Amino acid sequence: MLRLLLLLPLLGAAGTLPTPFRRRRSASPPPGPYATRYLSQQIDHFGFDENHTFQQRYLIADQYWKKGNGPILFYTGNEGDIEWFCNNTGFMWDVAEELNAMLVFAEHRYYGESLPFGNESFSDSKHLNYLTSEQALADFAVLVEYLKATIAGAQRSPVIAIGGSYGGMLAAWFRMKYPHVVVGALAASAPIWQFGDLVPCGTFFSIVTNDFKKSGVGCSESIRNSWNAIYRLSSTDAGLQWLSSTFHLCSPLKTLQDAAVLKNWLSETWVNLAMVNYPYKADFLQPLPAWPIQEVCKFLKDPSLSDKLLLQNVFQAVNLYYNYTGEASCLDVSQTATKSLGEIGWFYQACTEMVMPLCTDGVHDMFEPQKWDFDAFSEECYRMWGVRPRLSWILSMYGGKNISSHSNIIFSNGDLDPWSAGGVTQNITNSLVAVVIPDGAHHLDLRSRNPLDPKSVQQARAMEISLMKEWIKKARHSH
Amino acid sequence: MLRLLLLLPLLGAAGTLPTPFRRRRSASPPPGPYATRYLSQQIDHFGFDENHTFQQRYLIADQYWKKGNGPILFYTGNEGDIEWFCNNTGFMWDVAEELNAMLVFAEHRYYGESLPFGNESFSDSKHLNYLTSEQALADFAVLVEYLKATIAGAQRSPVIAIGGSYGGMLAAWFRMKYPHVVVGALAASAPIWQFGDLVPCGTFFSIVTNDFKKSGVGCSESIRNSWNAIYRLSSTDAGLQWLSSTFHLCSPLKTLQDAAVLKNWLSETWVNLAMVNYPYKADFLQPLPAWPIQEVCKFLKDPSLSDKLLLQNVFQAVNLYYNYTGEASCLDVSQTATKSLGEIGWFYQACTEMVMPLCTDGVHDMFEPQKWDFDAFSEECYRMWGVRPRLSWILSMYGGKNISSHSNIIFSNGDLDPWSAGGVTQNITNSLVAVVIPDGAHHLDLRSRNPLDPKSVQQARAMEISLMKEWIKKARHSH
Repeated sequence: MLRLLLLLPLLGAAGTLPTPFRRRRSASPPPGPYATRYLSQQIDHFGFDENHTFQQRYLIADQYWKKGNGPILFYTGNEGDIEWFCNNTGFMWDVAEELNAMLVFAEHRYYGESLPFGNESFSDSKHLNYLTSEQALADFAVLVEYLKATIAGAQRSPVIAIGGSYGGMLAAWFRMKYPHVVVGALAASAPIWQFGDLVPCGTFFSIVTNDFKKSGVGCSESIRNSWNAIYRLSSTDAGLQWLSSTFHLCSPLKTLQDAAVLKNWLSETWVNLAMVNYPYKADFLQPLPAWPIQEVCKFLKDPSLSDKLLLQNVFQAVNLYYNYTGEASCLDVSQTATKSLGEIGWFYQACTEMVMPLCTDGVHDMFEPQKWDFDAFSEECYRMWGVRPRLSWILSMYGGKNISSHSNIIFSNGDLDPWSAGGVTQNITNSLVAVVIPDGAHHLDLRSRNPLDPKSVQQARAMEISLMKEWIKKARHSH
Repeated sequence: MLRLLLLLPLLGAAGTLPTPFRRRRSASPPPGPYATRYLSQQIDHFGFDENHTFQQRYLIADQYWKKGNGPILFYTGNEGDIEWFCNNTGFMWDVAEELNAMLVFAEHRYYGESLPFGNESFSDSKHLNYLTSEQALADFAVLVEYLKATIAGAQRSPVIAIGGSYGGMLAAWFRMKYPHVVVGALAASAPIWQFGDLVPCGTFFSIVTNDFKKSGVGCSESIRNSWNAIYRLSSTDAGLQWLSSTFHLCSPLKTLQDAAVLKNWLSETWVNLAMVNYPYKADFLQPLPAWPIQEVCKFLKDPSLSDKLLLQNVFQAVNLYYNYTGEASCLDVSQTATKSLGEIGWFYQACTEMVMPLCTDGVHDMFEPQKWDFDAFSEECYRMWGVRPRLSWILSMYGGKNISSHSNIIFSNGDLDPWSAGGVTQNITNSLVAVVIPDGAHHLDLRSRNPLDPKSVQQARAMEISLMKEWIKKARHSH
């Protein structure tokens, strides 16, 4: 999604940066009772001049926990409100009883309520300076140690890190960097290799494309053809007007650049659909039917239609994504990126540590060709935040592909999920295990059990549980 | 040595903080030709607001290196000028040819020439903010990756970290935190457990005491009795004058507090002697004869002497340490801590991350009783630097005693070395190996081979070399 940035250098911050992990809603009901707690954390773990603290929020559920040595499943919160993650990580609730586990959901600093400088947290690069994965991991380590020291009977509880997406990376890195704190990690849909030149930059979008190709005849071709159709129409005022009204846009398109915004927004929509292409009705990024790409593709069967007919179909497709409940009176092409602090935080992270090269060629994917251009990306980050991304730092810090000396990490990936492009999909060692879910989209395995779950995700979860049990057993043994 | 701080809260910075790792001289000749190089490093690896760089110095010797896959022995520089360490780590030069190894000596930031803000580096807590072990390790990681990327034939060279004392801790932590960068580490005399309550705070000084007890009849008793003798004499002006002239002090003692400075200085001297109690004539902290404590103890046979006779003997003893060459015209009780930037840096580190509790009771040791008092220590640090030490951070970061999931680290310790109190002296796993050197003082094994080396250090080095060869072999195998 980084390409969007380069197309629209003049747009404001919000609409121009990659938002792959973004979530918009917080609708699901809580899976069980939990308590909300706060821990004082150093704003800067790695320096002593800034000695203030902030309140990190975490959620805790101990109704299934067996005092003494029942394990702690520790959710390594990612870029959003922790309640939302708590309510969307049914897997942990599903296994709590079986494992006699305590559940802890730790909020990532700079998201949700865990704002180091309150409302000032995003005001400038000085205040944003402590938003890094290293600081977040240090928060997690300090929190785990605090829990073990203060909860009666928790001192010997083995702790397992669990996370999805960016949170999955954090889970894996947590085990790598703090193996004395967590005995193992389940890293679901964690693209820890989507950095530097570890994987080809184009695979991500070719997976998205493949999802559409497989979901209906003519589907990906229709989308591929839509870009030029938009381009042709947007060259006249009448065409722009037609696009605005056909797509029911809340704000009409006025320039060629606005049309580029439309294209970005469509691209993001296709990517999001690929991430949430779940086998049952769900409400993750949006309320959607089962196998939503198949539903969308029902509108996109004929790529050879005229521009206007083709784009009317494209509207039907995106309308299914944005308006499945029928409540939206218009569609907002800027909506995807301005609603929550969480997004601002992620944009900053993408402009500093979390630089994930992505590209398209229009041949192996259905998108407009866009090369990966680090220099332009860096310029844009500097303009927006006054900071420069450091391309290789994350590799120096977390080891890139050279991680075989670590242990007890499960990397799960769904073949439908574009982020599997940067994931670990083959075993590295006996204890760095890849779990592949052919029918899975973005961390499907972390979701609640569902009668419509494909076998592959059932098997994946069984494997994950069995490995976790092994870690727990070994940890007890070593006491 | 922390006790000194608490005794003398009104002294200036330099004289009041622990200086166990301090080195004063840079006399030894270079063991072989090497080149001096510099690498641009981020001042702040863990934040993006401070985006300036500084020049890290490193020394490199490749005359023994076998291009292609000869290993790199990487000295993780500690708190001082890297040339001094290069010239005092003969072990690396001794094994370079046998291992076909390249030698690299990396200077620790804020020491020697590697000053992030030049002359301003120590001006306040803002400029000192980037002086942490984590930043230093990140420098090392970036440097190794840079060398492997830019030196033809080095890409597959396995890298082994080697360090002594604080540098030994860094070597061990480097392997723990960056196992993708170094295949193993030799951590010589690294007191990685001299933190929190991992080891009793009194062992350090009881080892010093034992060294003196074993080195001559009446020796430790004489020192134990000296404190009260000084106390009694320092209660009168005539006594202070007598002390000043007897100890040939450059600046006469004027108050009771000055007498406390004298006692600190003596305590430090005994500790330093324990560290450098080498079996041959050497010039590490000072030019000294073989087994210097035995020499010193020749003056301290009778603890039952009158105050003045006893203290005249004590003067003979310290005079041997400070004036073995006979060049000193007077002894300077403040000399030990004000000469180099390196010392200032270490004081700051001791007041932030590197908080090592030490204490004495006067019973199991020959020193004046002094409890470990963190609060007073913290106050003193705040007064001096405007920062507060964080007692448990280093444990959260590096795992304390819970490090068994790591691999390929040799912890070597000499039984004569007080720092062995906080060292790893028993095997933790097959690949976290303790090497104990009964006749060894502070990282004797890192010094050049010497005809007077005891068997125990010869065996230790043989073991170290054999383990390093194993790591190298395995690393080659995995390519």
